Amino acid sequence: MPQKKQSVIDPFGSTVIEDYQYLLKEFGIQPFQPLLNKVAKPNMFMRRNVIFGHRGFDLVLDAIHKDQEFAVMSGIKPTGEFHLGNLMTASEVIYFQQQGGQAFYCIADVEAYQDNQISLQDSHKFAIGNVADLLALGFDAKQGVIYKQSTEQRVKDLAIILSRGITLATLRAIYGERHFGLYLASLIQAGDILMPQLTDFNGPKPTVVPVGIDQDPHLRLTRDLARKFRQYNFIAPSSTYHKIMKGLDGSPKMSKRSPMSYFTLHEENEAIKRKISHAFTGGRDTVKEQRQLGGVPEICPIYEICLYQFVTDDQEIVNTYHACKNGTLLCGEHKAQTIQRVLDFIQEHKRKWRHNYDEAKAIVESTQPQIHKQ
Amino acid sequence: MPQKKQSVIDPFGSTVIEDYQYLLKEFGIQPFQPLLNKVAKPNMFMRRNVIFGHRGFDLVLDAIHKDQEFAVMSGIKPTGEFHLGNLMTASEVIYFQQQGGQAFYCIADVEAYQDNQISLQDSHKFAIGNVADLLALGFDAKQGVIYKQSTEQRVKDLAIILSRGITLATLRAIYGERHFGLYLASLIQAGDILMPQLTDFNGPKPTVVPVGIDQDPHLRLTRDLARKFRQYNFIAPSSTYHKIMKGLDGSPKMSKRSPMSYFTLHEENEAIKRKISHAFTGGRDTVKEQRQLGGVPEICPIYEICLYQFVTDDQEIVNTYHACKNGTLLCGEHKAQTIQRVLDFIQEHKRKWRHNYDEAKAIVESTQPQIHKQ
Repeated sequence: MPQKKQSVIDPFGSTVIEDYQYLLKEFGIQPFQPLLNKVAKPNMFMRRNVIFGHRGFDLVLDAIHKDQEFAVMSGIKPTGEFHLGNLMTASEVIYFQQQGGQAFYCIADVEAYQDNQISLQDSHKFAIGNVADLLALGFDAKQGVIYKQSTEQRVKDLAIILSRGITLATLRAIYGERHFGLYLASLIQAGDILMPQLTDFNGPKPTVVPVGIDQDPHLRLTRDLARKFRQYNFIAPSSTYHKIMKGLDGSPKMSKRSPMSYFTLHEENEAIKRKISHAFTGGRDTVKEQRQLGGVPEICPIYEICLYQFVTDDQEIVNTYHACKNGTLLCGEHKAQTIQRVLDFIQEHKRKWRHNYDEAKAIVESTQPQIHKQ
Repeated sequence: MPQKKQSVIDPFGSTVIEDYQYLLKEFGIQPFQPLLNKVAKPNMFMRRNVIFGHRGFDLVLDAIHKDQEFAVMSGIKPTGEFHLGNLMTASEVIYFQQQGGQAFYCIADVEAYQDNQISLQDSHKFAIGNVADLLALGFDAKQGVIYKQSTEQRVKDLAIILSRGITLATLRAIYGERHFGLYLASLIQAGDILMPQLTDFNGPKPTVVPVGIDQDPHLRLTRDLARKFRQYNFIAPSSTYHKIMKGLDGSPKMSKRSPMSYFTLHEENEAIKRKISHAFTGGRDTVKEQRQLGGVPEICPIYEICLYQFVTDDQEIVNTYHACKNGTLLCGEHKAQTIQRVLDFIQEHKRKWRHNYDEAKAIVESTQPQIHKQ
């Protein structure tokens, strides 16, 4: 694959691209690059190789080209405030909605309950804020479907139906040995992914699930089940995979367990400034050395958040890459620029968020849990 | 335990009582006999030791004595026409409803789907007939709750909530290695058993689940979960266990796999006659021998269906037992009597069944499945 060789000089690459290549080979995920010139209006993630792989995305492309129905489905685990990973997924869903897809956004409160021990009541509160973020980013709630797993009966019913088609051996092979509730949550996610194909939503259709590569196990499970339950005529769902952002603190990925590794869209400006200022970078030990050798944007989380989210102009990010590589752009300067850019983005986002809050509340409250804590 | 010694001369005993004793010891089920004199109006099954064991039934007795709220819950797997096992369970539910219990009757269509590969649509059809049987037997639908697992959201939601409290190791220990759907069905049954204690039904209360002893695993699971989820203040559900009827053909139990082992309440009279006429009995090889030695009612399925269901007068069944034992009642004569008694019962039952059919249809149709086969 050409990407591997290019990775050191590719502004859209990453030093961990070998790992992604491994995923492509080991799990049969297809590389996204060969499809790129078939996408009429590729989004930023596609153009920049942030979306690096897919399963069966050809079907969705075909539907777009032929102006046929297709769906996009993804969601959020409502465990707190919107972070950059949520932002990426939401942007992808909105992109496909704007390309004509019937859009489904799932609030995965059953998964939050099973995986993060968050009660359905707490999820409900988080979900209101999360949905306001989604609307602020441009999701059209009138054309799309926003729902909670815990109250969308069709999803639960699909989980019950599909559960007959799966053995414990398969679940263990995909997820390892977990408690029962987590397996159930994965069956419910299979229900989420197939719901757009029910007759209530106009029947079987190509469906793209844009997610982080860590979500691939759910796709493998669901594609397998979709094929097994022939009587429903499901089309095996497609997926696109984006890379996972590195932690600001230099850890392999942003994680709630390390507060310095990430920020949300609702943190205090001062906290965000501090996290970016203290971030790990691809800089050298001394200014002199950096002027001579240049920085290493491939390992730099600051470069990465610009690439993935905050620099929307392709030429500008290419310029940044080269300015870092040739030693003209130093880390302090780049951090200062990035802080400004992030805070500007967040200020504007928060304005829209407040504007959309009441609508979000109404949407989420129309999905009240049926069993309240007693 | 006194029953063991008495078993050969006890008209309400059974030669397999040792097996039941084993269950009492091995699984910590309590013998029912010591409670019998505390039951104000014991039903036929209690008086005749057909209900031989229980878990925590003291709680329910207490509630009855103090005129406090309690519930009764049991149900049917809608896989065909009502048979004698269903009849026994339904009679027990109705008995506790008449003692003042809030009554819940579950149509276990998710279990039928997972365990018997019966579609929810087919279950729906069977359920109408089954509910007409329940009403014909005297269930008061205005005071009680009849529902399907697949459409009762509270039951599914409880299954989701409770599933976090259980490991695969526990499920394997209780049920053995089964496909995922069957484990899910058992969680849904835990939901069935605890639903009467939700705030929608006036909160925690003693609940008795009258079932065949083969259903004990569900009770063990549910009692364990009820204790684990303290925040709901569930009272661990109680149970009563009835013995399982022997097959008419001499097999250890009535089973759909052996059509000659059982009959339903909706078979042709001729088929029922044939099955009873050809049934295995506790008779001897020759008339002479039987006159001399007497029959063995303890192993006789004809005696058993009279004892469990068709002879309602206690003195009469005692007389029958002794007439068999002392050789005055021969098998042919007893079969002829029993055929007449069964057909009389069924004729009257069918009349009530037809009378209740429309109401049953309305009840079941108010629970249409949400996902139709596409």
